[in-house]
Amino acid sequence: MKHLIDIKDLTRDDIIGIMDEADRFREALDGREVKKLPTLRGRTVFTLFYENSTRTRSSFETAGKWMSADVINLSASSSSVKKGESLKDTALTVQAVGADAIIIRHPASGAAHLLAQWLPETSIINAGDGQHQHPTQALLDAVSMRQHVGDVAGAKVILVGDILHSRVARSNVDLLRTLGAEVTLVAPPTLLPAGVEHWPARISHDFDAEIADADVVMMLRVQAERMNGGFFPSHREYATLYGLSVARAERMKDTAVIMHPGPMLRGMEIGFDVAERDNTIVLNQVTNGVYTRMAVLFTLLAGKEG
Amino acid sequence: MKHLIDIKDLTRDDIIGIMDEADRFREALDGREVKKLPTLRGRTVFTLFYENSTRTRSSFETAGKWMSADVINLSASSSSVKKGESLKDTALTVQAVGADAIIIRHPASGAAHLLAQWLPETSIINAGDGQHQHPTQALLDAVSMRQHVGDVAGAKVILVGDILHSRVARSNVDLLRTLGAEVTLVAPPTLLPAGVEHWPARISHDFDAEIADADVVMMLRVQAERMNGGFFPSHREYATLYGLSVARAERMKDTAVIMHPGPMLRGMEIGFDVAERDNTIVLNQVTNGVYTRMAVLFTLLAGKEG
Amino acid sequence: MKHLIDIKDLTRDDIIGIMDEADRFREALDGREVKKLPTLRGRTVFTLFYENSTRTRSSFETAGKWMSADVINLSASSSSVKKGESLKDTALTVQAVGADAIIIRHPASGAAHLLAQWLPETSIINAGDGQHQHPTQALLDAVSMRQHVGDVAGAKVILVGDILHSRVARSNVDLLRTLGAEVTLVAPPTLLPAGVEHWPARISHDFDAEIADADVVMMLRVQAERMNGGFFPSHREYATLYGLSVARAERMKDTAVIMHPGPMLRGMEIGFDVAERDNTIVLNQVTNGVYTRMAVLFTLLAGKEG
Repeated sequence: MKHLIDIKDLTRDDIIGIMDEADRFREALDGREVKKLPTLRGRTVFTLFYENSTRTRSSFETAGKWMSADVINLSASSSSVKKGESLKDTALTVQAVGADAIIIRHPASGAAHLLAQWLPETSIINAGDGQHQHPTQALLDAVSMRQHVGDVAGAKVILVGDILHSRVARSNVDLLRTLGAEVTLVAPPTLLPAGVEHWPARISHDFDAEIADADVVMMLRVQAERMNGGFFPSHREYATLYGLSVARAERMKDTAVIMHPGPMLRGMEIGFDVAERDNTIVLNQVTNGVYTRMAVLFTLLAGKEG
Repeated sequence: MKHLIDIKDLTRDDIIGIMDEADRFREALDGREVKKLPTLRGRTVFTLFYENSTRTRSSFETAGKWMSADVINLSASSSSVKKGESLKDTALTVQAVGADAIIIRHPASGAAHLLAQWLPETSIINAGDGQHQHPTQALLDAVSMRQHVGDVAGAKVILVGDILHSRVARSNVDLLRTLGAEVTLVAPPTLLPAGVEHWPARISHDFDAEIADADVVMMLRVQAERMNGGFFPSHREYATLYGLSVARAERMKDTAVIMHPGPMLRGMEIGFDVAERDNTIVLNQVTNGVYTRMAVLFTLLAGKEG
Repeated sequence: MKHLIDIKDLTRDDIIGIMDEADRFREALDGREVKKLPTLRGRTVFTLFYENSTRTRSSFETAGKWMSADVINLSASSSSVKKGESLKDTALTVQAVGADAIIIRHPASGAAHLLAQWLPETSIINAGDGQHQHPTQALLDAVSMRQHVGDVAGAKVILVGDILHSRVARSNVDLLRTLGAEVTLVAPPTLLPAGVEHWPARISHDFDAEIADADVVMMLRVQAERMNGGFFPSHREYATLYGLSVARAERMKDTAVIMHPGPMLRGMEIGFDVAERDNTIVLNQVTNGVYTRMAVLFTLLAGKEG
């Protein structure tokens, strides 16, 4: 494996391989005082972020540093982008500086795919491209599900909320299907994308009808910044129909878990107190994110050697 | 000691302990070509800055790197804050990523204290919260005083200028009182906070009456960005009454020193040439800042082990 | 050598020494999987950038990290500059924090020179000051020329385009003259600076008359952001008269190369397909940039020891 662009490029074995590697990193490091492996010493990893991010950028930076890689951050606001340079020339420049891997987040769907075509020698990792894919998020979600509910195959997973704008949803649907989960999308018709009927997932507009049976309730962020008004009558109506309230959370199975890719808008898609419930694994997802990204970097960069 | 939030949380022994540790780091590293200790190898330190800073952020970053920690910088402008995430969720996320320590600067008084309550496993270091506290500044100031004027107990220290907006003043008054210095605040009535009469310090409005007797003259930055006009008749009047001019500096005792937390507004609170006088120790404060922050990080993080 | 401010400060031997060192770093690291030398372990390098940059900042950061230095980035937008601190005080502060070297980019010509005067103990490296000098760019260009066309002495080099605003042109003319190249400036009269007749270079307004004979065609970026309109009739006319079209590129000698300091505005100063021609060495320049900056850091910082 040279790049990680789209979950659809991965076989079931690829996915399981990365998940197993993530588990091994967690076993090796979690709770240990000294988190430092020599694995990627002398390798150079660039983050190239054209959108803001706390968790994804710092998660990758931590993953790289814990494996002793040199990590160099570039953000669009301080880059030659302002001088009119094309994405291709920026990417070629970063490769020529000496990047072994480029982790890119970009508002345009397909940006990471283009980089992988343009750069023959550098591993490209898609950290989110427009509304298209966010593959490391889906992988860390699968790692977290397996850790907390067991085998993903056969698990009933519902994805709730703003499917339309969510690259997290797209990547998760692809991955969960490959692993054999039963996926249901729960959303208002206005927040479902065109063509969703061809996705490998059931569709429901009734959160209450779905929640009692689910093993995993994955809430999605409402991406209000991508809506130009008019999608939904009101925030209040959204919260009422599709928010995860305490009442709804109490109807979940004892063994089921609540997930959210973050950042959470408490009071909107998730109740203020729900994020603190015992079966909420949002922060476990964050922790698994670092181990999963270590696994991805290791697979792509150490795979070159063998 | 788990966190460093407020000087008032520290005993005299705590303070002396950190100061001694800072002196040891200075003795070990100052003037040496290779500044690198393995002390915090494999530890992960996040800076989380919601306000601009050259000296404090880079001072902490240098302190961490000289002890071989992994240091990861987050600034509010590139973080999930823009997507509406709460401070608590941001902090929990940073902890979940794997922070052993979070160094936070925030415009709201009390922000660091909240983090320490929310995060059970992570050391929180207050790098300035609103107009409340800036404890590492007070500690490095004490380290610098002891280095240049000897025992802090009994020393006559005057803090001059914008006490109202100064977290540096609050932290220094607390620390100097604990160590037994005689503290005088020299400021116009308009730049003193409500309740200042309960502080453990004398108050004076007459700089000329105080300067000849002082062992330490600590000038404060005029935080014009926090004033909405009207505080003071004019910049010129401020500079005349409360600025440290050459004429005033020449009335100081031979053994007395001039301090300033920086950044200095020369021509306003301090004369253009005064900052270059032999008894000005502003840059020594900066250098001691790194050693003091090494001492704090070491005390909080290595203290976990023993 | 303590600082690198201006190519005119360097002798021919200084220049050749740095170029040879850059070649040695390239031989040691290029194509190797592990790019890490212990050369500058325990040394602290600050980048202090008052202008945006992708390639220069990340090139220096990579150079420092590959030699195991601690690299700390400061940008004007997050610094005390906003609080009114002077450049001198900012620089003195960075030195006091513990910088062994400060790499500065600043919009004012002469800024780096001032830093070198102010800071007695720290190596200053000019990464571009206004329209004055960009010495590491000229050095990496010379390293690239020598690698691709052989001896620089006697080579016919033409610099084409916006000479007026180009610190790259000024540094290159100085360096190429010192090494004995034949330099021609090709530009419209409106994009030549006052006094250019005293530069050690021929001047031409006719690109077509010069291109067939050149060994090196160095295109310059059109710095439209520094023009206030009126310099040139139109973008189209500029591209027609001074752009490197395919037709012009095909009239070049077989052994000649095309260079550009980047970022390129394709379609303006260089044709969309020209940047991909076999004799374009733009990306080799980027790669040599890292090795050249390693050579500069090594020369300035390791030179202290010997």
